Amino acid sequence: MKVSAFATLAPRGALLPYSYEAADLGPHDVEIEISHCGICHSDLHLIDDDWKISAYPLVPGHEIVGTVTGIGDSVDHLELEQRVGVGWQRSACLVCRPCLYGHENLCAHKQATCVGHRGGFASRIRVDSRFAFALPKGLDSARAAPLLCGGVTVYAPLRRHGVDATSAVGVIGIGGLGHMAILFLRAMGAEITAFSASADKREEALRMGAAHFVCSTDAREIRAHAGSLDLVLSTVPARLDWISYLQTLRPNGVLCLVASPPGIMQIPPDALLGQRSICFSEIGGRATIAEMLRCADQHGIAPQVETRPMAEVNAALSRLRQNQVRYRMVLENR
Amino acid sequence: MKVSAFATLAPRGALLPYSYEAADLGPHDVEIEISHCGICHSDLHLIDDDWKISAYPLVPGHEIVGTVTGIGDSVDHLELEQRVGVGWQRSACLVCRPCLYGHENLCAHKQATCVGHRGGFASRIRVDSRFAFALPKGLDSARAAPLLCGGVTVYAPLRRHGVDATSAVGVIGIGGLGHMAILFLRAMGAEITAFSASADKREEALRMGAAHFVCSTDAREIRAHAGSLDLVLSTVPARLDWISYLQTLRPNGVLCLVASPPGIMQIPPDALLGQRSICFSEIGGRATIAEMLRCADQHGIAPQVETRPMAEVNAALSRLRQNQVRYRMVLENR
Repeated sequence: MKVSAFATLAPRGALLPYSYEAADLGPHDVEIEISHCGICHSDLHLIDDDWKISAYPLVPGHEIVGTVTGIGDSVDHLELEQRVGVGWQRSACLVCRPCLYGHENLCAHKQATCVGHRGGFASRIRVDSRFAFALPKGLDSARAAPLLCGGVTVYAPLRRHGVDATSAVGVIGIGGLGHMAILFLRAMGAEITAFSASADKREEALRMGAAHFVCSTDAREIRAHAGSLDLVLSTVPARLDWISYLQTLRPNGVLCLVASPPGIMQIPPDALLGQRSICFSEIGGRATIAEMLRCADQHGIAPQVETRPMAEVNAALSRLRQNQVRYRMVLENR
Repeated sequence: MKVSAFATLAPRGALLPYSYEAADLGPHDVEIEISHCGICHSDLHLIDDDWKISAYPLVPGHEIVGTVTGIGDSVDHLELEQRVGVGWQRSACLVCRPCLYGHENLCAHKQATCVGHRGGFASRIRVDSRFAFALPKGLDSARAAPLLCGGVTVYAPLRRHGVDATSAVGVIGIGGLGHMAILFLRAMGAEITAFSASADKREEALRMGAAHFVCSTDAREIRAHAGSLDLVLSTVPARLDWISYLQTLRPNGVLCLVASPPGIMQIPPDALLGQRSICFSEIGGRATIAEMLRCADQHGIAPQVETRPMAEVNAALSRLRQNQVRYRMVLENR
């Protein structure tokens, strides 16, 4: 099967029309006709070879929504015509300890949808059905796309750290990830504090459900929230004032990073007193993705997206690079 | 009431016989005739004024065991002649959020037994009965003393991080704290890996219940245990090879410090990938102390102690300073 896609041929290159012959449909695979594909910051990192794991021609895209058009012999949990989504991860061993516990995202043999494999900036994709998720009927396809990677990235740590209607949670960065965190936190009933370097996002953050907005360029303003939060989720891949953010935590509070900052984090042990902790969270396992989609459906979680035709992928990427997207870009095959 | 004690009159001074007039017995207080008092490393820090919180004359001692000889009007959970223990903490507000959740150890108004108050290197002490714990009958007084501070310090994080008979746990430092961690871990059924810079502790660590012993001066030996542990408890107040220890963790594993290292911790964010985390743990709340004492009684947890008469406190401190104690020093009023 011939797939029409967009690929970059070298690091930092423009995306060009590119077609490839898809691999045979394996017994556990599904073929998906792609209707939508979100653009995630990690697509930019892959295009730019920032992580030194890219291979070219590179077809990015890992927030995929579409309908099943082909089905392997061993697949019995999905059917033809069904609407499904695929996120960052396309496979795991399914037998190791993390996989057995439903933490396929932590499998040592995990593989990514657009690393060593062609991704979702394309007409179709063939992919392991165990990493394709049935989409609840109530979810709009364009708005569901960003949930598959960005959505679960913020949802998983909220669940793991027990966020509920008694929690006070901070979100650093009100962008693609951060605004989805606010939407889920509102559904969970948490009290939300939004930290952003962009003062012009105040109104929207409050409208989306934040109770407080803190201009994060002012360390004094951050410190005014000392001791108030159970969890702070950092969604920005930047060197931050870790000490001030650790101080915003209540005793037993957690600073959780979902985006990797550059450089070395300098942490004075005293900043962890009060049993504060620092951790990372990385996408989510299959059970968490399925749960997140149900939660989004049940609570009407609708990420704010801009849509563009797939053919305008370069213009879309350019808006993302310039930090102009409010808040998630989604490509459409029209 | 006149109390005979040992006090140091200035930082790093020897302990000298010292007597003081005890404060009136308040309605919530108990008076305890002290039979035993453990010596904790934090007593050395207080004697030396390392934390700049010491006031002189200073009576150290916060691993106190004795019998109740006086009781305030409002005390109804303890009685005269009852054997009780007192640890690091002597009070908390009991009304703030952490206190309400049973985390009095994280109360902003917490106060320590021998900071701003005279401690347990003495014949008697008057102290808030809400921080005096009835000792189960099965516990030997000398062996119970170190449980009151050191014991709960290692027990609390094991419980908080869900250690059970399926857990693999590392303990860095096989000393006063570390050996108690091994004893509790054995009772919980965990697989124990002991990390020590002293190769001569291998036999004893294995005898106490460790399944593995790692000479921690050899980074390669530490790295040979990569990805094997759910929790690593660091009991040594030293600058360690954090990256190697983070690598010993399984995905979702936790590096928990119960002793504060000097300087700034340099943590590359990549070292936290696999959802690893770093946290602190600080003694434990009242419920945890009471539970720890019951657990110690039920499972015959018997810290390995050296006992000395209270009058030999300087010789005892000297052995502790020279790292010669195996594994916890306890002073006795004979």
